[in-house]
Amino acid sequence: MAELRLNLITREWVIIATERAKSPEEFIQHNHKNIPSFLDTCPFCPGNELRTPGEVMRVPAENGWHIRVTQNKFPALSSEGEKKRINKGLRHLVTGVGRHEIIIESPVHNMHTAFMDTDHLSLVIRTYRERFIELYHDRRVEYVIIFKNYGEEAGTSLVHPHSQIIGTPIMPLLVRNRIEEQIRYFDNTGQCLLCAILDDELTDGRRIILNTEHFVAFIPFAALSPFHTWIFPKRHCASFGFITDTEIADLSIHFKSVLLRFFEGLENPAFNYVIRSHHPKKIESEYLHWYLSIVPRITQTAGFELGSGMYINTAIPEKSAAFLRSVKV
Amino acid sequence: MAELRLNLITREWVIIATERAKSPEEFIQHNHKNIPSFLDTCPFCPGNELRTPGEVMRVPAENGWHIRVTQNKFPALSSEGEKKRINKGLRHLVTGVGRHEIIIESPVHNMHTAFMDTDHLSLVIRTYRERFIELYHDRRVEYVIIFKNYGEEAGTSLVHPHSQIIGTPIMPLLVRNRIEEQIRYFDNTGQCLLCAILDDELTDGRRIILNTEHFVAFIPFAALSPFHTWIFPKRHCASFGFITDTEIADLSIHFKSVLLRFFEGLENPAFNYVIRSHHPKKIESEYLHWYLSIVPRITQTAGFELGSGMYINTAIPEKSAAFLRSVKV
Repeated sequence: MAELRLNLITREWVIIATERAKSPEEFIQHNHKNIPSFLDTCPFCPGNELRTPGEVMRVPAENGWHIRVTQNKFPALSSEGEKKRINKGLRHLVTGVGRHEIIIESPVHNMHTAFMDTDHLSLVIRTYRERFIELYHDRRVEYVIIFKNYGEEAGTSLVHPHSQIIGTPIMPLLVRNRIEEQIRYFDNTGQCLLCAILDDELTDGRRIILNTEHFVAFIPFAALSPFHTWIFPKRHCASFGFITDTEIADLSIHFKSVLLRFFEGLENPAFNYVIRSHHPKKIESEYLHWYLSIVPRITQTAGFELGSGMYINTAIPEKSAAFLRSVKV
Repeated sequence: MAELRLNLITREWVIIATERAKSPEEFIQHNHKNIPSFLDTCPFCPGNELRTPGEVMRVPAENGWHIRVTQNKFPALSSEGEKKRINKGLRHLVTGVGRHEIIIESPVHNMHTAFMDTDHLSLVIRTYRERFIELYHDRRVEYVIIFKNYGEEAGTSLVHPHSQIIGTPIMPLLVRNRIEEQIRYFDNTGQCLLCAILDDELTDGRRIILNTEHFVAFIPFAALSPFHTWIFPKRHCASFGFITDTEIADLSIHFKSVLLRFFEGLENPAFNYVIRSHHPKKIESEYLHWYLSIVPRITQTAGFELGSGMYINTAIPEKSAAFLRSVKV
């Protein structure tokens, strides 16, 4: 029989559909494309720097650059203008101000994160940290989110490796709800919910993918979709802004290994990843704990998810984790 | 400049991305397929009834049937078994019991809802009502959801026209949160939030698609995605289970017209629709109000939506509504 499992961070129930479950091998994507390492027409390739206006920072290399950060040419939120609230009857508005930057992760057009040199990946993560802290200095910004879309099913048509960072002028409901859950758990137990989950997962062991000095990757007990993966820092800390250089060095090895398992095991799936973090000023928080979430885009949500907010997951988390553990990297 | 708009029912903020907004015409799908009216190998086509076990009801026709309702062969939730809660430390489970039925809407393999005879569409909606009420008689069921997935982007590969109805053994968080919002609004104003929104939309007029005797179709002020559409019943009522035959007759004309505008205007987009309703025992509720939500699947969610729960909508609701109003049907 299927079972419903509760995600304690979001309070969402997930149907783990054992009756219609697929084996991990059935999720293999066979997605092999020949992509050149340089593309003349790509706005993110070296030599085309003038096509991405508003360079914010760059990590220089001997003959060019390792990483560039630029304004988004078509920003979802404008970096100019004043934050204003307008309330007319039932219509509540906030002006669309905030920040929206692109992090061009490499000059190499076909570089997949899983194949980056770990030193280079460390530079990418350090760049994330720098921009993350910087965006919170903008007084109009309430929440900062770093994410990557890889592959068309994950919502991008731009192949060149890049991530995005957005600073929103309001605190998203989803984040507020998660904070409330973490406070509630802390009130009831005196413990951080994520620290407790991490202890529990390490003790159980069946859903662990990788355990290194500072990070643990695992498939959540109530994973929303096949191969949905969390990477938790072992050190309790509310904000990604306070990740140390030592932790970044470990995370780059760890993250590369996890993404390589996806790439090799599932044959190059599309995916999104996102850093779920809080404001750097929350450094003292006993109940908030940042983490990284990776969602391979290998299934499609449909009317049931739309209508109920619940997910039907056709992969058994324990089997998915065993599969990823067994991939040779 | 873009603007953020608040969805008062869900409390989610949506970025209406005016800077990167597309014209309605840019969402046209050009999705034209030649599908036969009968397919030998289709399990839902007449003659193959034995391939869909567990017929629950049928609307008979002279030479066969108009509509059949069957058990789902691979149910997400099992109709057999006992509802049990299991709590082990941080792992909370409910056994996967509930209901999962398929409503085969027509014997005609390539029948699109937009082209159904309105009498036939009335029969489909009456079947929805009957099964909706019936599933709530199952004591294990906490919430019933009726939905349809049309097209691959909407999560189905089965072409033959069908809807699904699922009874879940728990109350989904999304539904609970919406109920709380409606109570809060009612506490503050003494009014039903949805009645108030309906009044406001009718007064404003810019987002209205269609207004008939008993129903109003409109693009919500804070539509989550392009052409996201709500159809509200004018009569305040918490539960779809109490829709009257007169209202069904009007809804079938109304719904057909809206779906035809999608089909003609956007050239056969994939879509999901879902009936958002409450338990028939909630008949007396002053603050709950059922409705129908249609979501064309013409854009892809990505890392930002995953990370923030917020949506970026690249269509201006007022323009989308004007476009759909102008489609000749």
